[in-house]
Order: sequence, then structure tokens, then C-alpha cells
Amino acid sequence: MKTLKLILITLLVVTVFSCQETTSKESVVSEPVAEIQNDIEKVEPPHWWTGFKNQKLQLLVKHPNIGSAIPKINYSGVRIAEVHKADSPNYLFLDLEISETAKAGQFNIRFQLEDASELIQTYELKSREKPAEDYIGFDSSDAIYLITPDRFANANPKNDVVEGLLQQGIDRTDGYARHGGDLEGITNHLDYIENLGFTAVWPCPVLINDMPSGSYHGYAMTDFYKVDPRFGTLKDYKELANNLRTRDMKLIMDQVANHCGLEHWWMKDLPFKDWVNYQELYEENKDNWDWKTTKTSNHRRTTNQDPYASKNDYLEMADGWFVSSMPDLNQRNPFMANYITQNSIWWIETLGLGGIRQDTYPYPDKAFMSNWAGAIMSEYPNFSIVGEEWSYNPLLIGYWQEGHENNDKYDSNLKSSMDFAMQKNISDALNEEESWDKGLVKMYEGLANDFAYTSPKDIMAFTDNHDMSRVFTQLKGDVVNTKMALSYLLMMPRIPQIYYGTEILMDDFEKPGDHGLIRTDFPGGWQGDSVNAFTGEGLSDTQKDMQLFLTKILNYRKTSEALHNGKTLHFAPKDGIYILARIVDNETVVHIINKNKEAQELELSRFEELGLSGKTLTNIISKETLIWNTSMTLNEKGSTILTTKTQ
Amino acid sequence: MKTLKLILITLLVVTVFSCQETTSKESVVSEPVAEIQNDIEKVEPPHWWTGFKNQKLQLLVKHPNIGSAIPKINYSGVRIAEVHKADSPNYLFLDLEISETAKAGQFNIRFQLEDASELIQTYELKSREKPAEDYIGFDSSDAIYLITPDRFANANPKNDVVEGLLQQGIDRTDGYARHGGDLEGITNHLDYIENLGFTAVWPCPVLINDMPSGSYHGYAMTDFYKVDPRFGTLKDYKELANNLRTRDMKLIMDQVANHCGLEHWWMKDLPFKDWVNYQELYEENKDNWDWKTTKTSNHRRTTNQDPYASKNDYLEMADGWFVSSMPDLNQRNPFMANYITQNSIWWIETLGLGGIRQDTYPYPDKAFMSNWAGAIMSEYPNFSIVGEEWSYNPLLIGYWQEGHENNDKYDSNLKSSMDFAMQKNISDALNEEESWDKGLVKMYEGLANDFAYTSPKDIMAFTDNHDMSRVFTQLKGDVVNTKMALSYLLMMPRIPQIYYGTEILMDDFEKPGDHGLIRTDFPGGWQGDSVNAFTGEGLSDTQKDMQLFLTKILNYRKTSEALHNGKTLHFAPKDGIYILARIVDNETVVHIINKNKEAQELELSRFEELGLSGKTLTNIISKETLIWNTSMTLNEKGSTILTTKTQ
Repeated sequence: MKTLKLILITLLVVTVFSCQETTSKESVVSEPVAEIQNDIEKVEPPHWWTGFKNQKLQLLVKHPNIGSAIPKINYSGVRIAEVHKADSPNYLFLDLEISETAKAGQFNIRFQLEDASELIQTYELKSREKPAEDYIGFDSSDAIYLITPDRFANANPKNDVVEGLLQQGIDRTDGYARHGGDLEGITNHLDYIENLGFTAVWPCPVLINDMPSGSYHGYAMTDFYKVDPRFGTLKDYKELANNLRTRDMKLIMDQVANHCGLEHWWMKDLPFKDWVNYQELYEENKDNWDWKTTKTSNHRRTTNQDPYASKNDYLEMADGWFVSSMPDLNQRNPFMANYITQNSIWWIETLGLGGIRQDTYPYPDKAFMSNWAGAIMSEYPNFSIVGEEWSYNPLLIGYWQEGHENNDKYDSNLKSSMDFAMQKNISDALNEEESWDKGLVKMYEGLANDFAYTSPKDIMAFTDNHDMSRVFTQLKGDVVNTKMALSYLLMMPRIPQIYYGTEILMDDFEKPGDHGLIRTDFPGGWQGDSVNAFTGEGLSDTQKDMQLFLTKILNYRKTSEALHNGKTLHFAPKDGIYILARIVDNETVVHIINKNKEAQELELSRFEELGLSGKTLTNIISKETLIWNTSMTLNEKGSTILTTKTQ
Repeated sequence: MKTLKLILITLLVVTVFSCQETTSKESVVSEPVAEIQNDIEKVEPPHWWTGFKNQKLQLLVKHPNIGSAIPKINYSGVRIAEVHKADSPNYLFLDLEISETAKAGQFNIRFQLEDASELIQTYELKSREKPAEDYIGFDSSDAIYLITPDRFANANPKNDVVEGLLQQGIDRTDGYARHGGDLEGITNHLDYIENLGFTAVWPCPVLINDMPSGSYHGYAMTDFYKVDPRFGTLKDYKELANNLRTRDMKLIMDQVANHCGLEHWWMKDLPFKDWVNYQELYEENKDNWDWKTTKTSNHRRTTNQDPYASKNDYLEMADGWFVSSMPDLNQRNPFMANYITQNSIWWIETLGLGGIRQDTYPYPDKAFMSNWAGAIMSEYPNFSIVGEEWSYNPLLIGYWQEGHENNDKYDSNLKSSMDFAMQKNISDALNEEESWDKGLVKMYEGLANDFAYTSPKDIMAFTDNHDMSRVFTQLKGDVVNTKMALSYLLMMPRIPQIYYGTEILMDDFEKPGDHGLIRTDFPGGWQGDSVNAFTGEGLSDTQKDMQLFLTKILNYRKTSEALHNGKTLHFAPKDGIYILARIVDNETVVHIINKNKEAQELELSRFEELGLSGKTLTNIISKETLIWNTSMTLNEKGSTILTTKTQ
């Protein structure tokens, strides 16, 4: 399949695009830039850097009739290797080669038009700020705080409504309207997040969604190089990144390679006939474009792996639009492919990212996604990418992680896949009454599936996220069960992710699963909020207790080698009790889930393998100590976390 | 894990067993056997063959005080390589080496006792009847008929009750009593089975179960070399095998390596202290041995794969007894390991088997099972073994099949694992109302999991078996749904297995899942039965119709290269219709499941990849033909099977 696609891509390049002569190789004397000139409507990426392993850069140039222009660059170490016309006369794609000798600086790209006139665009190559190896991605030593930026904190009410954008106004009573949260709101509350014990922040997308409705969620981008002004500016985004870096915390960017928003600027003048999938259908029907006229994805994602899948079904899945307001990008067009990859690298370099979360992973072209992740990991060997496939099938969790021995030879280059199976297992396990094959055994046997994964500790786990009912709602408002779910999440050999507000038991009981409700405003994020979860003002005791519970575990976890990289050992649940331990030489952490309401005397001989006999352990929540002996009393239902480290 | 066990086994051999001097290597002149002598109580295997790849044979010799005897053999090409004492004085284990030059024939083993007296046992080496390559195991060209022998046909009422056995009498009104079915009953009805279209027969175990109760099911063997006299004799078993061979059909033997029956002869005098697991516990409590005193398996089978499983949990699973009436054999005792392996080979050679079905596959020692299967496959390269693990987790179905790239490097040497996941998928798919993620999509996405299997077509599939509710009951008595389940089963890239009586819609509605009821007597198998399914007498029209339906598909399948080895192509279910095709160059078989009660006009453009446009197809049930064109009318709910082959 992969080979076939590469051939197709090659054919496309050869047959569709006429290539112009390249500029001469001997141009080595740089032409000085007297003043910055911006004759061209759009050049993307807006700037680049010297010193990448990959010396190629493909510029998208958009300007009325630029297609017939002849571009020239005089800058030492930079040459135009190839010029590609597009189907629209208003685009030109320039393949630059940036040699190792190229120095950071500005140079002009001169476009000679048919009428012999000239347009000049100053372009900049910057120096890279740090070595590629220093872009350290999230891993199992991290705990990730997931935020819906519109709903977390509104630091700057002035940017709530921005003139000229399609969606105007904010309405905090409407779950699907904008509420005013912004990047500065996150930055202002990093103390809170850091004190909770998180080491990484994943905000849902903050790039511009200039859409007439539903723009708050961020997944319908209308410009891949622009921050949504309602969230702030690029400076604000950098400020967040820098602030996190200062705290030794990581910023994870939520990227979308599968689709853009229907109002993306290029939808009015698409460079190629195949820039987006089902483009012809769209062009023909755009005046009455809705869910009925759209060819939407059949969402049959198993066609990605299924050796028996019909090609037709696969293409309907991969090429159909996610929804009618999100054009499906055609990553089999090599210019689109370059565009997406360069955009990702631009953001990593601009923000000094600590990871990417890639949306709707199984929907874009599969061969492209492997190349995309491969290109990034080749530039940033210590980086991390996690891809989202919402599937409870462990075969798929395994399939998507790099290095898995897949029969079709596919290697995703993805360090991390997402453990939706475990999310469901935890939820089921705690909701169900205990029996032979129900209850805690779901967590136990779910974790046993790790035998099939290449690197379980690099898989991202969670009890909920921005797309599903909150864990407190999943667990029917049972606080103790919620604590068990979260403590287990933080003990497993995984990268744990927790959704904002979980620490104060935010819920969606009113309409379980409703997206607007799942993404409720964080109390205290808005001036005048009667409750302030940042300060604790107005929180119930139960909420404060949960905040403290998570704070204690997360802060313990921060420096716990056992929880980051320890050996895992667990014991089959029995009589409603399930024990999981993480072990390194000088630290053992024992996690006990007890589902019994009555006090239990737990015989410890069965757990001899833990090697804890006679040792003193400390409860990381209560700080009480006990000596591991023949038995232990579990007084109440709940989770107990014990460590051999002195607390 | 495997390495550890091998080390343990080696240690056992070295530390526990004192070895005697081997006999001299120069004994090459054979001593003639004047007359057959049988001084010894038991020598097993009772005979052997020349010409195996593995030239080693380990004889179990049981006789009062034989442990102190010195054995001698004078037979060209045969030497005693080593003599092992056991813990019990009444056993001796002889390691024979049978060289390539050894000729078939009889020889005496002379046991010189401490008092200088001698016991003589004549032993025979037979010639092998056919080359090892000619033992062809079942594969995807087969369709297997699974029979509970006690419940199929009672050809010889004289062997219904056998004097001297612990369980006496038959009672056809009691689902857990013996009913009298026998091997001859199967042999007598091979015409019926063959005409239905089956090519292989798998009877549940027929070795002796001399148990006080529940002996009918056959899984509690009390002698691994003896046919249960209530089922007949070894001659009857051979008769069945020969009769099948004449028809070019295969006999599959149901073997049990995990346990024996509590009344097994060796339980009264166990050769070693570790012949069975928890032997000490048993010895101490045998007078009041019941489920309370037994250490039964914890049945946590995931400990076989789970990288985090406690050793204790694993041992409780593997070494605990399946039930209190079935001692758990200790395959880590190398003499037991040899015993089981040789027993399997003895039966393959004696009956000319076409396959083994190994019971409770995940329960015996895992390293041993791989060695066991490896030893058999090394002798019979074209043989087939299927192992039973009742799990709906596709990771395990993949794990157990040979060649799968397991992280723990385990290779089962098993050609075939069992697809319980698909059994559940088919049942759920047909019981559920259609929706986005329910109904036919369960079959479609279940089959998509084949991407993760080494060789899907070598996996055994079924809609039910002797341990679960019959498919007609699973499908709530819906005949059309039952037809869809069975036709799909026979179209998939699998080895299909069908349980006896499915063809006449046998059910267990009265008490779903009740083992006795699942294994109801086949009507016509007993003299005086008012209904005779063999002749059709007394069957309802619906039953006759189902018999005919299966007969037509199975007989088509017999010679269908497309169904045996064809490429599989299927289309995501849509509007209650699911299409699966099997394709080779000159034959395409299309299977259509239509869940709609109303007539449907099915547009065929979506199925262009089938390449059937303009071709004539024949319905293999109705023999009607149609031309594959722009659309097709599906008049009623049900499955339609079309072929491009002229019928």
C-alpha cells in the first residue's frame, strides 16, 4: 500500500506539474537586504531556520498571477532547486536548498513577472535556539494537564470578541459558544498547575478557527500559522511556552493534519485540483454545502489495517470529510504533505515544544502520517508524538506504536499511542460489581495486554478527555471510585493525562457526554466567578479533598523513579482487592484498591514477591507509616498508596 | 520464563534422579524371542516404531519393586542409554536409543532383580505404515464435524454398561449420565457425515474415564493408552480411522495434556513426588478430597502472557487443579513430559490421525506445550494441532499461533488457535439491531482483526461447541439468523468446525448453557428413536431445510479453491447488508447477508472491485442464476451465496 502511494505521488509530481529551470548553482554572493519588502500576499512558512538535517524547504507563494513569475534568490548557501506551478495561477511552490554553510539572515526573493516588472519578498532564515537533541518530548516521567483553552481562564477580556471574525460575541450560558478563555489565562495559572504536580500542559488547538460557529474547540483551523486572536497572539503562545520551560514543564501542541476549517483562506482559491479530497464535489456544491451534499467519512477506521478491506471503503474513510465544515486535506498531494510537515516543524522550533498530540490519527493518509512523524523524529530524536485513535481494540493500540511488528510492515514512527481501552476498562471495572469476570479483573486483564505492546510506558493513558464524559460522571458521582481510577492511572506504566477540572470533580451529569458540558468553564477563571478553584474559595470540602489527593500523588510521582520507569508487578484481584506495585532498586510503590465497604484484614503472604517483609512503608496521602508484616487492615473502601521512600 | 523453566527441569533431573550405568554399546547381536513374555505389569508406550527422527524412547516400567532391577536388551540397533529410578520403588524409566539400523521386530527386556531372579518383557518395534509426510493435518480445505461420542449413536448396546467400571448403568433422561453412544455408532454413520459435506471428524475424547460420575464427557482420562470400553475397543477406534481414511476424511483426536481423572491408575502409586501438581496436598487429604480441600486453578490465564503477573498467580493458574476430580499433571517433571509427548505420537501413528485438538491449552506448563507441539510437528511436518483457549481477546488468538512475533519470544508451534472472539462476534452481530457500532459491523470489524494474525486461514472457527449454548439457542431460535451465522462461518478464511446436530437445529432452550443439554442425544442414534435425523424420518420441514442448506454449502465448499485459499474481500456493512467475497483466478464466491425484512434493491457499483460486472452467478442454494449488473434485488432477510462457477 505504502509503495503504491509513493508511486502515485511520484506520478503526480511528474505528470501534473511542469517544472521550471532551476536557478544557477554558482550564485554564491549574497545580495544585501536594504529594507524588508513584503510585495507578496503570502509566503509560507513565514520564515525558516538554518541547520536542519533536511536541507530542503518548500515555500508556498500566493499572489495574484504569481504562477507565471520567475523567482530568483541571491544568498550564499541558499538556492532554488526547483519551481513548481500549481493548477491555480495564483500560486508558486519553490523548492529551496539550504546548505550547511548558509548563515542566518534575511534575503530577498525576486519574482520577475511576465511584463518584466518585479515583486520582492524578504525572507528570513533564523538561527536555531538550541540543539535538536534538547527538544525533549513528554514521557512516563510526565503528568499531562489537558485544557480546553476557551474554558479554562479568561485573563484578557479585551480579546473575547475580535472584530472582523465570523463568530462574534461570547455567551457563557451556551456550551457551544465562545466563553473567552485565552492563552494568557493558562500562563497566569501555571503556578496552580505546577503545584498540582503536573509537568506538561496540552491545550486543545489555539490556532485560528475563523468559523461562523463552534469555533471555540479549535479543531477547524483556518490558518495553520496564526494564533486565534481570541486566544491571544503568537507572543502570548511563546510566553506560555517560555513560562513552562522556566518551570521545566513541557508544552504539547494539539495539531490536526487531517482537515482544516471550511473557512480556511485557501478554500477560496485552492492551489491544486486535489488540494483537498472530494474537491470537485465541493466546488460544484459549495453554495449549498451541508451534511447532505458533503461526502463525509464512513469512519470505518479498521480499513487502515484490515487486509480484506475494499479500497473503496478505505478511501471513503480516509478521504471523506470528517464533518461538512472540515475539508479533508489530501496528503497524497506532495505539496500538501510538505506543507503539513513543515508547519509542524515550524511550531516545534517556534515554541520549543515538548510534544505534539496529533488529532484523528487514523483518518489522514496512513503512509503520509508515517512519513510526517518520521520527518519530525529525524530532526528531533528525543521528541514525542502521540496519535489519537479512539478504539477499545488493543490490537490497534499496539499497531500504531513505533517498532511494532506489523504484518503489513507499517511503522508509524509514533512514540505514543492512546489507551482508550484502558479508559474503558477502568470505568467498567469500578462501576461493576465484583465477580469472576467483572470488576477489578477488567483493569488487571487490561493491563496484562501490555505483553503485546512495544513500549507500554510510552502509551498515553487517561480516565477521560475533552471528547467524553468526565470520569466523575462515568463513575456515577462516586468520589471514592474516582480516586481509585485516578490513583491507578498515575501508578500504571503509562504517560498519564488528566483533563482540567478533574481535580475539583467537574461533571456532565446534566447531559452526559454533551461536548459543551464536558468543556465547562473552570471556576475562578473568569472575573466575578463565585467559586475560585485556583484559590480554593467556594470549593466544597469534597472538591478540596480531591485537589489535595491529586496534588499529593502527582507531586510524589514527579520524582518517583519507580513510577516513571519501575518494574511493574500486580496480583490478580481477589475478594475485591487489587494490588499493583512499581519497583526500582531503592523504591517500591504499592497501590491497593479495596472495593469492600467493610474493614478487611489482608493476608500479605501472597505478596511475598514484593520483598517488603519487615519494611516500613509510608502512606503518601496520610503520611502514616506501617510495617509490612503478615497482614494489613484496610479500614475502608478506597485506594491506598504506600511507598518505601521516607516521606 | 522459558529459560528459567528449562533450567529448573535440568536441575530436577540432575538432583532428584540417580542414574544407573548404561548398558554396553557393543551389544549388537539380537537375542531371538522364542515366545512373547509379559512378566511386567505395565510398560508404556505398549509398543513403538522404528524410523522416527527422534531416536529416543523413554519407557515407563511399572512393577512391584522393579526400581532395583537391572534391565538388559540384546537387540540390534537398540540400546538402553540410561536407566532412571523413580521415587516409588515400583517404577523404572528406561531411555532407549533406537538407531536407524534397528529393524522392526520383537525383543525381550530382561530385568535382573536383587535376588538374581529375572523378569522378562517382550517389547515390539513396528514398521511405520506410511511416510511421516503423509500425515496430513486438517486445514482450511476441511470442514470439521464435532461429536460428543456418548450422545451421537449407540451402535452396540452391549457395551453400554461394562462390568467392573466405577460408573454403572445408562440413563438417557439424565444429561450427566452415560447414554450409550459409541465409536461404532460414529463409524456406522459416516455416510451421513460425508454426505453432509464434512471432511473431518473430531470426536470428544474416547479414552477410558473410569470415574464414578460424569464419565461420559471423556476429559477425565484414567488411562492414556486405553479406549473406554463403553465406547468400544482400540479395534473400533482404528475401524473409525480407517473408514474415514477410505473416504479421504480426517480423524482428529481430542487430547488432554493438562490433567487426568482422579481414578487414573497411577494415582494409587505415583512414580515421583512431583508427578502431579499439589501432590503432597493430595496425598495428605485424599481421604476427604473434594473441592474444598483441592487447590484448584485460579483460572487467571492472562498470567501466561502478562509481563507483570506475579509468579504466585501464574503457578496457581498452571498448577492448580482444573477441578477436584482432575489431578493436574506436572509437565515440568521431564518423565511426565516425555510420557505425554510419546503418548500423542503413539496415537497419531496408531490411528493415522489427521490432527489433534488439545484441551485447555493455557493450563499446562507453557514451555512444555511448545516443546510438545514442536516434537510432534518435527516428526509430522504436515500435521495440524489446534489448541483451545476460551478467550475473546484477539491478542491471545494471535499469540498462540506459531510464528507470531511475541515480545516474550514464545513460539507455540501450534498451527491453529481457536477463534472464540469470532464466535461471540457472530452471535452478537446477528442478535443486535443494526446501528453505527452494533450488528453486522461486529463480524466485519472482527474479521478485520486478521491483520494481526500470522495465518488467519489456519485458525479454527465455530459458532458453538460442546461447552457452550448451541448456535440456534444463542440466536434465540431464529432460523434465518442461524443460517446466516453458519454460511458466514463456512465462507470466512478459517477452518470451520460445526457441532453435531446443528444441521437439525438442536437447542438448549430449556436451560441455556447446561452441559448435559448441549450434548443431547442425536435423534436416530438409538434404536427406537421416534425421530431419525440420519434418514430424515420425523424431522420437521425446518430441520430438513437446514440439513439441506448445510449440505449444499458444505458440498460446494469441498471443492472450492476460493473458499479454501482464496483472497478475501469484504465491504463495510451498510443499511443492514454485509458482503464478503472469496476469490481465486477462476472462481469468485460472494456471500451476502441481508438483515432487512423488506425487499432491498442493492446498488452494485460500490462492489466494482469484485470484477463481476456482466458475469453470470449461480446461487448455490437455489441454483438460480443472475447477471451481476447495476443492481440486485434481495427479496428477503437471509444469506445469499453466489458463485461464478457453473453449478
